[in-house]
Formats: sequence, C-alpha cells, structure tokens
Amino acid sequence: MKEDLLRLIEILGTITFAISGVFAAMQKRLDIFGILIISFITSIGGGTLRDVLLGDLPVKWMRDIETPALILVSAICAVLFRHIIKNFQQTLFIFDSLGLGFFTVLGLQKGIRFGLNPGICVVLGTITGCFGGVIRDILLNNIPLIFRREIYATACILGGIIYFILYSTRFPKEWLDVTVMLVVFMIRFLAVKYNLILPDLYKDKDKKGHH
Amino acid sequence: MKEDLLRLIEILGTITFAISGVFAAMQKRLDIFGILIISFITSIGGGTLRDVLLGDLPVKWMRDIETPALILVSAICAVLFRHIIKNFQQTLFIFDSLGLGFFTVLGLQKGIRFGLNPGICVVLGTITGCFGGVIRDILLNNIPLIFRREIYATACILGGIIYFILYSTRFPKEWLDVTVMLVVFMIRFLAVKYNLILPDLYKDKDKKGHH
Amino acid sequence: MKEDLLRLIEILGTITFAISGVFAAMQKRLDIFGILIISFITSIGGGTLRDVLLGDLPVKWMRDIETPALILVSAICAVLFRHIIKNFQQTLFIFDSLGLGFFTVLGLQKGIRFGLNPGICVVLGTITGCFGGVIRDILLNNIPLIFRREIYATACILGGIIYFILYSTRFPKEWLDVTVMLVVFMIRFLAVKYNLILPDLYKDKDKKGHH
Repeated sequence: MKEDLLRLIEILGTITFAISGVFAAMQKRLDIFGILIISFITSIGGGTLRDVLLGDLPVKWMRDIETPALILVSAICAVLFRHIIKNFQQTLFIFDSLGLGFFTVLGLQKGIRFGLNPGICVVLGTITGCFGGVIRDILLNNIPLIFRREIYATACILGGIIYFILYSTRFPKEWLDVTVMLVVFMIRFLAVKYNLILPDLYKDKDKKGHH
Repeated sequence: MKEDLLRLIEILGTITFAISGVFAAMQKRLDIFGILIISFITSIGGGTLRDVLLGDLPVKWMRDIETPALILVSAICAVLFRHIIKNFQQTLFIFDSLGLGFFTVLGLQKGIRFGLNPGICVVLGTITGCFGGVIRDILLNNIPLIFRREIYATACILGGIIYFILYSTRFPKEWLDVTVMLVVFMIRFLAVKYNLILPDLYKDKDKKGHH
Repeated sequence: MKEDLLRLIEILGTITFAISGVFAAMQKRLDIFGILIISFITSIGGGTLRDVLLGDLPVKWMRDIETPALILVSAICAVLFRHIIKNFQQTLFIFDSLGLGFFTVLGLQKGIRFGLNPGICVVLGTITGCFGGVIRDILLNNIPLIFRREIYATACILGGIIYFILYSTRFPKEWLDVTVMLVVFMIRFLAVKYNLILPDLYKDKDKKGHH
C-alpha cells in the first residue's frame, strides 16, 4: 500500500512539474515545441543532473518510456485547458509541494544507495527537487527562482537534515521516506501560506541607498 | 560512395555550425577566445549533451582530434573573412540545413544502436541537431532561437517520426539515413523560403491587449 | 615538500573561487542559499564539467567531503565578514590567480593521464580553470566574464601550450606543474596590473557608428 502511495505521489509530482514548465514557457510566449521542451526539462531535469553527476547512465527516462509519455500528455493537456487549469492554482501548488518532497526523498535515497556522505546526500536531494526548475529558468533567461528568498531549496535542505536526524534515532525506517516527504511539503506549504521568506541580507545597503 | 557523401555532409555541417557560432558571438562583441569557444560549443554541443545523457564517455571529440581542428580552422577563417562570408548567407543556410538533417540522423541511429524506444530516439535526434544552438544562445544570454516559432526543432522531430514510419515499411534500409536527412533539410529549407512559422498560441491574448 | 605546496595552493584556490562566487551572488542580491549554491558551483564547476565530459564519475567532490566542507565554511565566512574581506581585494586577486594556474595544471594532467591529445588537454585545462566562473555567470544571468577581452581563458590556454613545449624539452618533469602554474599566474597577474586586454575585433565597426 505504501508503494502505491509513493507511486501516486511520483505521478502527481511529475505532472505538476510538467504543468509548471508549461506555464513558465507560455509567460515567455514560446512556441508549442519550446513549451514541450521546457515542460520536459522542468519535470526530469533535476533527476537527470543528479544521475549525470553520479554517472548512473543512460539517464532513467531513456529506458522508461512511461515518464516521458506522461509528461507529453500532461503538457499538451495543460496547453489545451490552460484557461481552466488557471482556476486550480491552489490544487496545483499542493501537488507541486508534494512533488518537491517526493523528489527530494528520491535523491536522498539514491545518495544513500551509492554509499555517499550524508552532506552529499542532502545536496543530491536538493538537486533532484530543485534543479529542474533552475534549468527551466536558465533556458527562459530568468534568474532562477530558488535564489530569491523563497523557502524552496530551504525546504529540501531542512528535509534532508531531518532525514538523517531521524535515521540515527529509533524512528521506524519504513516510514522515513513518507515522513520526510511530508516534512518538506509542510515547510513549503506553511512558508507560502504565511508568506515566510528568508531574512534579507542586504537591509543595511538599502537604507544607505534611500537616505 | 554513400559513405563518402555522408562524411562530406558531416564536414560541411560541422563547418557551418562553427561559422554560425562565430557570427552569433560577434553580434555580442565577444573577444577572440569567446568567439572560438562559442563556435566550438555550437558545433559539438548537441552531440556532447547526447553522449553525456547516454553515458557514452569520454565524449567523441576528445578522442578524435580532426573535428576540433576542423572547427578551429573554420572559426578562424570565419573571423578573418567575415566581410566576404556575409555575402554567402544563402550558401551557408543550405549547408546549415543539411547539417541539421545530418546530425538529426546521427542522433536517431545512435539511439537505435543503444536499443532505445523510438520516441526517445526522436528526442536524441532533436538534441543532436538543435542543442548546440541552444547552449550557444544560453551562453550569449539570448532566449534560445528554437523556442521562437521557427520551424527548426520541428524539422528534426518530423524527420525522426518519418524515419520510424519508413523503417517499419519495406523502404530500403541502406537509403533510410540519406532520405531522412534530405527530408529534414527540405522541411527546414521550405519553411524559411516560404516563411512558414508555427501557429501563434497567444493570438487571443494579443487581441485583448490591442483593443 | 612540493606535495604540501600544491595542496596548499589547491586549498587557497578553492577558498578564493568560493569567495568570488559569494561576492558575485551578493551583487545580484541572492538569498543565503542562493549564495551558497553559487559559491559551491564557482569553486567545483570547472572540475565537475571536465569529469562529466571524461566520464570520470561520480564526480570527485561526492567522494571527498573535505572540499565541500571547505567551500561551505569559506562561503559562510565570506558572507559574515564581507565588509572586512572587501579591503583585501589585492590578496584575494593573487589567490584567485594562483588558483587559476593550479586548476589549469590539474586539468592538463588529468587529460594526459587519460591519454588524450595535447590540444584536448589544453581544452581540459581551460575548462577546469575557467568554467566554474562561466556556469556562475550563466546562473546569474550575466554574459560570462571570460568572453569579455580580459586575459583570463587566454592565460590558461597559453599555460597549456607552454606545458607541452616544456614537456618536449629536457625541462625537469618534476617541476613542470609548479612552473606552468606560476606562468599562468604571472600572465593573469601582469595582464591585470598593466591593464592588458585582447585586441578589439570590432574597432572598424565602432568608427562607422560614430562618424
């Protein structure tokens, strides 16, 4: 049953990442193939970068036609029904946050399977969760969103740290993945709901500028 | 004889991709080493990304000094004779379109040799044909040209689909590569000649903007 | 003793590359995690790209926790003491130039160990020395600095060529690495001190524009 739950979350995460790519691409008025390419990269970019750095090649989506097919269908639906989907921002945001948690845990587990240091596993979790969006923003010529005081990469990093804290306690191993996924989800969800952002490092400079 | 023909097209494609890199870099007023680096990346970037994703490493141009040497000489000639070359835009465009077809077929065949799904082979063909230009545009801080309603990636994708349609018929296998190369070339050539572009997804939004 | 010297230079180079990432990120007003990520990428990006192209995976910093830890500490110190560090621009610049020389030699030697052609080894040296900064500039949405007439990549390329010239003479092999490192350092150092830049390829165009 837990396997089914995780599989469902992976599917929802892949779909919402693909949809977020479609909307970002349409804001820059890209053509249909540009939209599909950006959608694809947003959805599988983080995992691809992780696997390239690990040398786990060819990358997984080349062997597994289901994920590319799922992304293609999601992206086309998102383009066709864009006026309807826009009304479900809140739902999309929840799926996106769940996906963020899921992909973070996926990266953490892969690092552990490769026998890597906890600190590096946290890096891999963050790459898997966030770097699809980073590559999307680079291709669209934006400064990556994750660099802009939002609690996004922060949620992945905190989730990774909590993973290894729980791992070293008597916390039941079989619920570790679901728990940390929900922790990342909650951090991201609460941060957006209560408008929490990272402290502003540049406050003093601003004052000088204004006075 | 067919081998010689394909080798000639590879050389012409490599040279014109290198020259297109030089001109794009000079438009941004880069220094001489910047021009050489962009020229190099435009020419071998697509194949390099494909081979990294496949794990076919070290990438081919590291073992084969001929291609880097060819690109270096082409780029230096393009800088020196830039005022002359500008008068041969039409010739360059034909070579560039032939190169696009050639590199697309190269990617398709490599995917087949790795036993990958036809859909993934089409992706690899498109990456090989187009992503040198995408990386060039990212480095030069432009939104990649292929995302801008031009029939460019479209030609690669259609070529890839036609490849697998012909593959499943009695079409003679030994002429498959040359045929699809010419198909990609013709799609690209006719699209530019008759000014064909992809449909505008944003028309309704435009109207709202103007009235 | 020479080993200790090289190790010291590697540490200083890693630290100064990390600090240069922090300052570039703060100029774009990134949040704290953005700063850490850019700092990390500036420091290990060149070597990572080299190892991905070579297929020497997983990349080294995943197995060696010391380097990531060193970068993390350097970056945090650079953020905390940014007002003090700014007064040591000259010192930082010397370390940065030493690091450039060190990482260039590292790339050259790795190419030789993989049995690659001297021309490709020079490319690998330049990638190792410069491409951390290139990726940093792409992420920050700047046109990469190395494309802007500064003697930076030039120093790596000249250093690489001198390496192979000395290699083919009776020059003592055990001092080759330190010598070339100092050559790269001196080229970079003198270029900045005497304000040397690459020739302007676009002068004639400028004149047309102004008259």
